[in-house]
Amino acid sequence: MKILIPNTIDLPVTADVETVVYDIDAAIPAEHRDAGVLVVWHNSSAWLQDAARALPKLRLVQALASGADAVLSAGFGDEVRICSGRSLHDGPVAEHALALILSAVRRLDRLHDAQRDHRWDDDFNDAQSAPDTQRSYTLAGARVTIWGFGSIASTLAPFLTALGADVQGIARTAGTRSGYPVHADADASAILAKTDVLVSILPATAETTDLFDAEVFGALKPGAAFVNVGRGATVDEGALIDALASGRLRAAAIDVTESEPLPASDPLWDAPNLLITPHIAGNRPVGAAQLVDQNVTRLAAGDDLVNQVHP
Amino acid sequence: MKILIPNTIDLPVTADVETVVYDIDAAIPAEHRDAGVLVVWHNSSAWLQDAARALPKLRLVQALASGADAVLSAGFGDEVRICSGRSLHDGPVAEHALALILSAVRRLDRLHDAQRDHRWDDDFNDAQSAPDTQRSYTLAGARVTIWGFGSIASTLAPFLTALGADVQGIARTAGTRSGYPVHADADASAILAKTDVLVSILPATAETTDLFDAEVFGALKPGAAFVNVGRGATVDEGALIDALASGRLRAAAIDVTESEPLPASDPLWDAPNLLITPHIAGNRPVGAAQLVDQNVTRLAAGDDLVNQVHP
Ligand SMILES: NC(=O)c1ccc[n+]([C@@H]2O[C@H](COP(=O)([O-])OP(=O)(O)OC[C@H]3O[C@@H](n4cnc5c(N)ncnc54)[C@H](OP(=O)(O)O)[C@@H]3O)[C@@H](O)[C@H]2O)c1
Ligand SMILES: NC(=O)c1ccc[n+]([C@@H]2O[C@H](COP(=O)([O-])OP(=O)(O)OC[C@H]3O[C@@H](n4cnc5c(N)ncnc54)[C@H](OP(=O)(O)O)[C@@H]3O)[C@@H](O)[C@H]2O)c1
Repeated sequence: MKILIPNTIDLPVTADVETVVYDIDAAIPAEHRDAGVLVVWHNSSAWLQDAARALPKLRLVQALASGADAVLSAGFGDEVRICSGRSLHDGPVAEHALALILSAVRRLDRLHDAQRDHRWDDDFNDAQSAPDTQRSYTLAGARVTIWGFGSIASTLAPFLTALGADVQGIARTAGTRSGYPVHADADASAILAKTDVLVSILPATAETTDLFDAEVFGALKPGAAFVNVGRGATVDEGALIDALASGRLRAAAIDVTESEPLPASDPLWDAPNLLITPHIAGNRPVGAAQLVDQNVTRLAAGDDLVNQVHP
Repeated sequence: MKILIPNTIDLPVTADVETVVYDIDAAIPAEHRDAGVLVVWHNSSAWLQDAARALPKLRLVQALASGADAVLSAGFGDEVRICSGRSLHDGPVAEHALALILSAVRRLDRLHDAQRDHRWDDDFNDAQSAPDTQRSYTLAGARVTIWGFGSIASTLAPFLTALGADVQGIARTAGTRSGYPVHADADASAILAKTDVLVSILPATAETTDLFDAEVFGALKPGAAFVNVGRGATVDEGALIDALASGRLRAAAIDVTESEPLPASDPLWDAPNLLITPHIAGNRPVGAAQLVDQNVTRLAAGDDLVNQVHP
């Protein structure tokens, strides 16, 4: 079987197949239109639509992104199976989420501001060790709530537990997941009232649009921190700025914004006690070659595929 | 037995003893000079010297700092045992070290600079996902060397391992510690040549003064990161600035400097790709009350004390 590998990633596939590297910005060469498997990473929607018409022998499209939305809407027929790259991003996104959580709790943004002013911040040292404020400066004993408790959360949660945090989740249905108590979103307000750090790993859907609004920030324990590695559309950004400005939120760190790239004139850039990173938590799949190997082997054997999302 | 507890920390001691809270900035009241145990936290050297003369029935001084240097030089006699707070700081220092390591690897300092310029850093995203540079942006697969592999390192190392790093140590003698390979400092250069992230948790001693110099930074893998939560005196700060300016070091994050507070005119403040925090990794002992309980109980029973450093 011939597999088309994009030129946007190093993919040392070991399955016994013919691999051909293609340029995601050019048409697929005529001699490779007999491929049976197409791996996609950073391809444009227009390119995918062309591919859906150009590859008559195609049996599998393996996306490496978490969500395969662009591939799903490109017009591939039901004879083509589509698999997503969900789980390839768990480690990288959890790593970046942990960096943002620690930065928000240890206030690396504020200390970096002091550094720029050539100022040794003694007040920080007093606050982090004073009996009434020290709890805010550590994950040890902190209550962390992860809203959106799926694949990434299951990888992130154990790091937080190891650092001494008390971790729970919120999702659409309640239950125990990966050993953690997960509550239904209908019960959110009671959970938020006891939350020191709220972490969002929610997808953008009709139900999650502007979910993090003034009411949610107001329901949190005063002085809580907020971290978002899900999607920007889930946040009412005006409410986030207000909650930071009023001190209702002590700090926030977000990897995603409603409009990306964030326009230079956006007021979010200057919100106090906020760290913004440019949607970099993921975008570096881990184990992609193994996933391709696995699905190619399963396809040949007629077994169920991993992460199949179509048909 | 009467125990004197400083007013600088909340210490819910449960041992069956009489506890009296004292002001570290005032003389010990005459009616409490019969105390048998003195707990100290942030007391001045002058205060400690007075205490060494004022408490005739004293049998134990329990320090809560990692090192008990100030207490040891205050003039307490050999009838008084002195115990340090070593281990109380393992969790806090490891937490801050992890925050600094993740910040250096994920370059939160650089992204915070871009934020201040209202700039969405697309180059970062390209570099962190390009096949030839992506390894620098993650702990997964990174080789991390901890120089000074004692109490704090043993707490820190498992977090790094869980994030996918390959961790080893350097100390005065080689061996396996807490399951990690630790090399003798004589063998450092071979280790450094393969090190992506060098973490220092060394004490300041005559042998460690300026240990991290141009030779050490030059021996590291080009583009390595350096993190210091030990002591500032272990670093030749001019060499650190040069290594950052030349790009030899990709990034650094330090919690300690040679002179503290760092003077406003110091060139370190403006070194590129450097994050400075104001000696805040520790200073928030965890489990202090339990240590006091334990040593008071052992003292009463005539057992060996924990962390005894004198006589
Ligand atoms: N920043 C980045 O670079 C980056 C990278 C990768 C992914 N992401 C984002 O992270 C999201 C999560 O990824 P994942 O792999 O962990 O996905 P996942 O396994 O599908 O988990 C999603 C979680 O969100 C919950 N959820 C969905 N809609 C909800 C609602 N209306 N109310 C409450 N909970 C809801 C789900 O609850 P149920 O389980 O109850 O259905 C599930 O727990 C992705 O969708 C993507 O937006 C960001
Ligand atoms: N930033 C902060 O807020 C903060 C807070 C607490 C502590 N600290 C610093 O962290 C240091 C370490 O704390 P710890 O509790 O982990 O101490 P520790 O358990 O005594 O460990 C110290 C380690 O340093 C090694 N070492 C000492 N001198 C050395 C030399 N000349 N060459 C190579 N290795 C040497 C020791 O090696 P051997 O085991 O082979 O002797 C040991 O592995 C403290 O001394 C203090 O300076 C900083």
